[in-house]
Amino acid sequence: MIRIFVTGGTFDKTYDEIHGRLSFRGTHLPEMLRLGRSRVETTVETLMMVDSLDMTDVDRARIVAACAQCPEIRIVITHGTDTMVETARAVAHSVRGKTIVLTGAMVPYAFGSSDGLFNLGSALSFAEVLPPGVYIAMNGQHFAWDSVRKNRESGVFEKLE
Amino acid sequence: MIRIFVTGGTFDKTYDEIHGRLSFRGTHLPEMLRLGRSRVETTVETLMMVDSLDMTDVDRARIVAACAQCPEIRIVITHGTDTMVETARAVAHSVRGKTIVLTGAMVPYAFGSSDGLFNLGSALSFAEVLPPGVYIAMNGQHFAWDSVRKNRESGVFEKLE
Amino acid sequence: MIRIFVTGGTFDKTYDEIHGRLSFRGTHLPEMLRLGRSRVETTVETLMMVDSLDMTDVDRARIVAACAQCPEIRIVITHGTDTMVETARAVAHSVRGKTIVLTGAMVPYAFGSSDGLFNLGSALSFAEVLPPGVYIAMNGQHFAWDSVRKNRESGVFEKLE
Amino acid sequence: MIRIFVTGGTFDKTYDEIHGRLSFRGTHLPEMLRLGRSRVETTVETLMMVDSLDMTDVDRARIVAACAQCPEIRIVITHGTDTMVETARAVAHSVRGKTIVLTGAMVPYAFGSSDGLFNLGSALSFAEVLPPGVYIAMNGQHFAWDSVRKNRESGVFEKLE
Repeated sequence: MIRIFVTGGTFDKTYDEIHGRLSFRGTHLPEMLRLGRSRVETTVETLMMVDSLDMTDVDRARIVAACAQCPEIRIVITHGTDTMVETARAVAHSVRGKTIVLTGAMVPYAFGSSDGLFNLGSALSFAEVLPPGVYIAMNGQHFAWDSVRKNRESGVFEKLE
Repeated sequence: MIRIFVTGGTFDKTYDEIHGRLSFRGTHLPEMLRLGRSRVETTVETLMMVDSLDMTDVDRARIVAACAQCPEIRIVITHGTDTMVETARAVAHSVRGKTIVLTGAMVPYAFGSSDGLFNLGSALSFAEVLPPGVYIAMNGQHFAWDSVRKNRESGVFEKLE
Repeated sequence: MIRIFVTGGTFDKTYDEIHGRLSFRGTHLPEMLRLGRSRVETTVETLMMVDSLDMTDVDRARIVAACAQCPEIRIVITHGTDTMVETARAVAHSVRGKTIVLTGAMVPYAFGSSDGLFNLGSALSFAEVLPPGVYIAMNGQHFAWDSVRKNRESGVFEKLE
Repeated sequence: MIRIFVTGGTFDKTYDEIHGRLSFRGTHLPEMLRLGRSRVETTVETLMMVDSLDMTDVDRARIVAACAQCPEIRIVITHGTDTMVETARAVAHSVRGKTIVLTGAMVPYAFGSSDGLFNLGSALSFAEVLPPGVYIAMNGQHFAWDSVRKNRESGVFEKLE
């Protein structure tokens, strides 16, 4: 059983054709799980729908509390990439004994060229088999929360030496 | 370092618009890794391009030999779903000490509604962290080679009791 | 007001993931009109769902009758490309005073690389403005029914000299 | 022979994954013509790459001059929808004897759910057969430049009464 917490981020952005800009409507997670023919037992819960640059400490506290309180011990969090590491740190400081994997996307799922479906398959798989801890799953790789940074020039996640 | 062996299957089928049927041209693996923004160190090698219902014992012997002889100890094999379990068995009987993950797709990657990208993200992730053994990664799940079957009515892989 | 008659063809083929082959389910026309944000007043009617190589004289007689009997004087017919010219001829021999445009696709709409949406936009536009007659709209062009053939090597429709 | 002038607009917006916003790179027109298997003789020329809300009088003068000076008498202009009618008016006031069709998209072509390919098929077809004049082709319909407005609430083009 895996709990999936949705927090927004590029992953779930969609194109608002009336106003000609990117925005949030609902989450694409259920559609993506269907497309991946996923048979993993999951519960999807939307905590918020925000750009991760706009995420506040209050938002982060809600995510931490949700991870601590849910009965599942395996959790995937979809999150904007810009502050994913910061949220991972907040979760790691407060939640023990659970396998928690944060993932996101560089390109919205609704775009043809998105990495979202690849990342979701990757994050669920890591969440199923990694030992307790807080991880980031991006670019087909996983990183411990305290040994990774997003390289903003290249857009990829890198291991800290 | 992960070696990816391509053997064909639905995963890589494409639409031949002159003859109006599904067929094989090259593999979509490099394009899919690019789309997933994968930073996993991989070497892609096409062993064959066949429908898994047409796969012969000679084909399987080639796959087994390739797995045994490549220097990598982590391997992903893309394969048609219909005889994926049979090939997994052949590999398991001959190759020890390596983590080998077979995956495929129910719908060709070239189709809009494919599960291929999700499965590739999943298979690479399992290959990175599972202990030595032969596994099948489908539907977001992994199965030991000797405890799984494809349910041909529903199209999903199920655990054998 | 345009009547759209659906007869099948590559246009509407979809991938049957249980049997691993192309087949017909329902038509994609309403979804395509929605995607194109079409505001053309249309009525979509499925006459049959067949590969045009399997189309019989009885099928063609039904198409001719449908064109003759519907109240609209502007008609689009979606049709497999292989015998599209033959059906156009049958319609031209029996129906006068209407603008009838046959179109199809080289690649199923459900595939990412389909020409279907382009062809539908083209066919509807020709149907709105061309004088009475029977036409084929493919490759962004229109042809009178008696001056066109499908080049089976290149997959394109060509003007007969 | 049709000249296609590219001016930008939603049509050609793409997702900049490093900065997380929509922006322009090259035009998608050649790729779209390939996807549509277009056999129309076209020359694609990029005049500018701007959001139509940012289009200046100088930009419009360049479009008018390009239409007047090119040898082709059939022209398609891709353009942002917000000021498409304004540019159509400027062209109509200065260019005579040519069939000029402006089109655009409500959703970027690079998005899965774009109307761009449908509109391109439609605009090319209208450009091939309409008499000299300046038209807007959107939503599968064509409008004379002086009898249309964009309804900003619904996002569709409507005939002025």
